[in-house]
Amino acid sequence: MKIKSKIWIESNNGILLSDGRVQLLKMIDETGSLNKASKALNISYQKAWRLLDEVNKTTNQPLIETKIGGTKGGGTVLTPYGKSLIIVFDTINKDCWEFLDKQLKKHSLC
Amino acid sequence: MKIKSKIWIESNNGILLSDGRVQLLKMIDETGSLNKASKALNISYQKAWRLLDEVNKTTNQPLIETKIGGTKGGGTVLTPYGKSLIIVFDTINKDCWEFLDKQLKKHSLC
Repeated sequence: MKIKSKIWIESNNGILLSDGRVQLLKMIDETGSLNKASKALNISYQKAWRLLDEVNKTTNQPLIETKIGGTKGGGTVLTPYGKSLIIVFDTINKDCWEFLDKQLKKHSLC
Repeated sequence: MKIKSKIWIESNNGILLSDGRVQLLKMIDETGSLNKASKALNISYQKAWRLLDEVNKTTNQPLIETKIGGTKGGGTVLTPYGKSLIIVFDTINKDCWEFLDKQLKKHSLC
């Protein structure tokens, strides 16, 4: 027996972070572009944009920043706040899996 | 900010328990009938039967038992093993929510 979980963080205005949103933010960080990130994740640009828009509506502090021009021709990057939120999400997720594994053992279900 | 979670328990043969499966098992326990349980949950008898069949395939010990005839005209009941599994699932779920609330506070996200 194995125990699995999905977590998500929400405010009154909607979902801030979930597996899908974190995956998108990480890919934006990796590629520096919402367009490249959506292609890499095989979702439409419109869907990616909508997800980010929903994320932005749940928080006052921006998670991403769009840079225009510059030597690299601009692009989309994560803010330090965005990066720290992803680290927190991943940490809580990992700790939750460990917690659940212990519970399964405690209740003799594995 | 609030943190939410969904848990499920699976074996190599499929999903044993999830929110939906536990809800169905509880309703069978309450109504004494798979037919009544599926109606109460607004799902088709076929879907309810398929869910139970999947549950049964993941474990060697039966979670439900079908009684034929008798003064109450038979029906479907949970076995003691089925009842104990539901209690374990609900307990782990509740403990997980408490654990996650603490994590949110720990990371100053609420």
